[in-house]
Amino acid sequence: MAASGGKVLTYDTIAECVKDCQYAVRGEIYLAATERIKAGKEVIFTNVGNPHGLGQKPLTFLRQVMALVMAPFLLEDPRVSDMFPGDAIARAREYLVHVKGGFGAYSDSKGNPYVRQEVCDFIERRDGHRTSPDNIFLTNGASEAVRLVLRTAIRGPSDGVMVPVPQYPLYSASVALYSGTFVGYNLCEAKGWGLDTASLNNALNEARRNGITLRALVFINPGNPTGNCLTVEDLRQLVRFAYDNRLVLMADEVYQENIYQSKTPFTSCKKVLAEMGYPYSSSVELVSFHTVSKGVYGECGLRGGYMELTNIDQRVSDEMYKLCSINLSPNVTGQVAMGIMCNPPKPGSESYALHMREKEVLLQSLIRRARSIVDAFNGLDGVTCEETEGALYAFPKIDLPRAAIDAAKAAGKAPDVFYCLELLKETGLSCVPGSGFGQAEGTYHFRTTILPAEDTFQSVVDGFTSFHRGFMAKYGGGGGGGHSTWRARL
Amino acid sequence: MAASGGKVLTYDTIAECVKDCQYAVRGEIYLAATERIKAGKEVIFTNVGNPHGLGQKPLTFLRQVMALVMAPFLLEDPRVSDMFPGDAIARAREYLVHVKGGFGAYSDSKGNPYVRQEVCDFIERRDGHRTSPDNIFLTNGASEAVRLVLRTAIRGPSDGVMVPVPQYPLYSASVALYSGTFVGYNLCEAKGWGLDTASLNNALNEARRNGITLRALVFINPGNPTGNCLTVEDLRQLVRFAYDNRLVLMADEVYQENIYQSKTPFTSCKKVLAEMGYPYSSSVELVSFHTVSKGVYGECGLRGGYMELTNIDQRVSDEMYKLCSINLSPNVTGQVAMGIMCNPPKPGSESYALHMREKEVLLQSLIRRARSIVDAFNGLDGVTCEETEGALYAFPKIDLPRAAIDAAKAAGKAPDVFYCLELLKETGLSCVPGSGFGQAEGTYHFRTTILPAEDTFQSVVDGFTSFHRGFMAKYGGGGGGGHSTWRARL
Repeated sequence: MAASGGKVLTYDTIAECVKDCQYAVRGEIYLAATERIKAGKEVIFTNVGNPHGLGQKPLTFLRQVMALVMAPFLLEDPRVSDMFPGDAIARAREYLVHVKGGFGAYSDSKGNPYVRQEVCDFIERRDGHRTSPDNIFLTNGASEAVRLVLRTAIRGPSDGVMVPVPQYPLYSASVALYSGTFVGYNLCEAKGWGLDTASLNNALNEARRNGITLRALVFINPGNPTGNCLTVEDLRQLVRFAYDNRLVLMADEVYQENIYQSKTPFTSCKKVLAEMGYPYSSSVELVSFHTVSKGVYGECGLRGGYMELTNIDQRVSDEMYKLCSINLSPNVTGQVAMGIMCNPPKPGSESYALHMREKEVLLQSLIRRARSIVDAFNGLDGVTCEETEGALYAFPKIDLPRAAIDAAKAAGKAPDVFYCLELLKETGLSCVPGSGFGQAEGTYHFRTTILPAEDTFQSVVDGFTSFHRGFMAKYGGGGGGGHSTWRARL
Repeated sequence: MAASGGKVLTYDTIAECVKDCQYAVRGEIYLAATERIKAGKEVIFTNVGNPHGLGQKPLTFLRQVMALVMAPFLLEDPRVSDMFPGDAIARAREYLVHVKGGFGAYSDSKGNPYVRQEVCDFIERRDGHRTSPDNIFLTNGASEAVRLVLRTAIRGPSDGVMVPVPQYPLYSASVALYSGTFVGYNLCEAKGWGLDTASLNNALNEARRNGITLRALVFINPGNPTGNCLTVEDLRQLVRFAYDNRLVLMADEVYQENIYQSKTPFTSCKKVLAEMGYPYSSSVELVSFHTVSKGVYGECGLRGGYMELTNIDQRVSDEMYKLCSINLSPNVTGQVAMGIMCNPPKPGSESYALHMREKEVLLQSLIRRARSIVDAFNGLDGVTCEETEGALYAFPKIDLPRAAIDAAKAAGKAPDVFYCLELLKETGLSCVPGSGFGQAEGTYHFRTTILPAEDTFQSVVDGFTSFHRGFMAKYGGGGGGGHSTWRARL
């Protein structure tokens, strides 16, 4: 058979599941932003929670230990004790003993046992309940762990996964990639994007009417993109719902350290489950996810994450372990970073004061930035924005004027995509349209991070407000008026 | 609906494709070895090519640069120039300029553009032919890149991928996970595990008779587990075969620096393709894989890899890019390690002499170890072992006596698994049975790495020979005799 014309692999002949998945965080707007950079224009990437990408500095202790593990020959140099604090040197030596071969060797496919023990100790201190290193899988960021669970649970199109709407699109993309069915349950914007029992039941019942077997329920706490923090009662409700309906709970808790108010402190689902007692604590299957990418560390590039399995059948855990083994091991730098995050300098140690100060300064700055941007959005005509109680985002709703919706239609774009493309074009701000996360029919949102550095943050806020006023003035949405650099530039 | 008994996720109710995949490198023998360690016994892990895990030291320049990028505050310290060579400092500064946010920030999902350019320059120097950073994807090790291509190409069970037998089980595992059909073509042990045209055609024709659409052909050069190196004529034959039969070529070239003879130096498939001219060079779709885990770097734990696309349709490349974006970015430490490997110290630079000496010492040692173990195997009755021309493995054939095969059967094990389990029990050596890679019906092999450190290598060799003699003596396979610690311990 001679070669007929054309490629073997074409868009029309590759796997459908690959084409089916969408990931808006790096979607159309991001690609347009990338083109803009190639053209020499400025872009402020507020599309993704990538703190160091916007100038956030790494925490000192973590990087001191990591540098020494990376270059063990430094430990032989007598000057090392002048350049590094003693506790960082001691920790590096510890890792070099317990992580055989250091950063250069594959670890066990679930991750290094010593680091998994550090993760366990962290969880036990946080929750007051025991766990075991056998329940911990270290992964290349939390995303990989989420995908591992979904890959294992989804058998085909008649298996469904319940996911909040709006959601982080890792979930919709992965469910599509594994040919499962995405079953969205709506969060209630009017209640600050809180849980809504009716929505949960409606989504469940409709999916069942359609012949879908529901396998798992995802929740994100603190919420992405919503910024909502769940109460202990919310979590109890989710546990009961999972128990009653035979669902595995997937607790995306990657923003657990990003809490900006005291009304709803973070409580892990694991703790709530453990304290609910029989029959819940011994039977509800729970997988919890965490990462070094968020919190105050923000070490996205190191790709460190973990998942903790609770009440998961041993043979199922073994199958996940086997899947991990195909990739040999998660990257070891990310594993050690996770160990340090879970086991930071202790009170009385040489690095403790600096470490706590760095964390506090950053947390206070995030609180100010969250406040500032939410207030700015709520000060605009045609915009309402729920509180950013936690996580790294604001998710304002925009009441787009009829003329803007028509203009979007004429341009062949969804209205929120149109708004974000115009925003990018006029200000260099790269956000993600609400349609990438899911939003109620006829409503329009976008997500921005609160991460631009504080010394430029006001100009970012001004960019949003000035653009929005100009946009609304152009499309007759009331408000407007005042100074508009956006309009002036047209 | 109240919870009925039992778990939501059980072995019987998870995805079939997950259960279908097997990865022997971390399979039964590895798990037994892990148990042995938990019991406080020694294990020598020769199951996986993990040099640093067996004591190989990292190359100095790479780790110097990496440590400085990890801890940029060191660059502010005046003592840094006493502790690090100037070219390492300069390279670290360069990365900190071009890798925005350093190790802590997500990069582009295909990897950092500056590092991709370094990879391009490396490929152009190696091959004498141009490529573009747009063709390069940086990944968490080469395995991830292989899986990305297979995920994209395989639509379902009627799509087949041609894979050499014996193969590296990443391929069989991934094809199973994506529900494709594994189409093995036999390598010819009698020709040092070389290519065999008849086998290629037989496999192709049989698959087609079974209604399989063949999509891609994998080859591994230098070979894993075989140690075979392909000639330029072999590669031309593969290109013609791919062209004639409309197959995407997947060139696993991760061992390209591990060459232990001068008869068959490494030539990349990309170079061969480019030099074959019309119609091949402009039409045969090729994806080539490389890694920082092998070669003389052996930086497995950093999980750095790349793939280069040649003649791949742009929209297909875009879909792969979208898939990568779901995981945001490959780990940035692995990316920078890849950059350094592709762009090592240049002649005349401060670190050049040391760097070259470290590489040469290591290469010479690998050559000696390959020689030593192959000769030892060939000196044993009932064992034949082809040359380790390249890569990191020896793959001896064992003529198991009837009694041993019966004993394996009685133990419920495949004969080669039985042999490897006994080997582990008696010597602590953890190898991988030939059945994990595929072997001709009725033949038995195992794979060992050549990686135990040189000062312990002779004792490893002695462990193999002593065990084998005892095993053969026990099961009446002739030979035997002489000293057998194995038999003595029974």
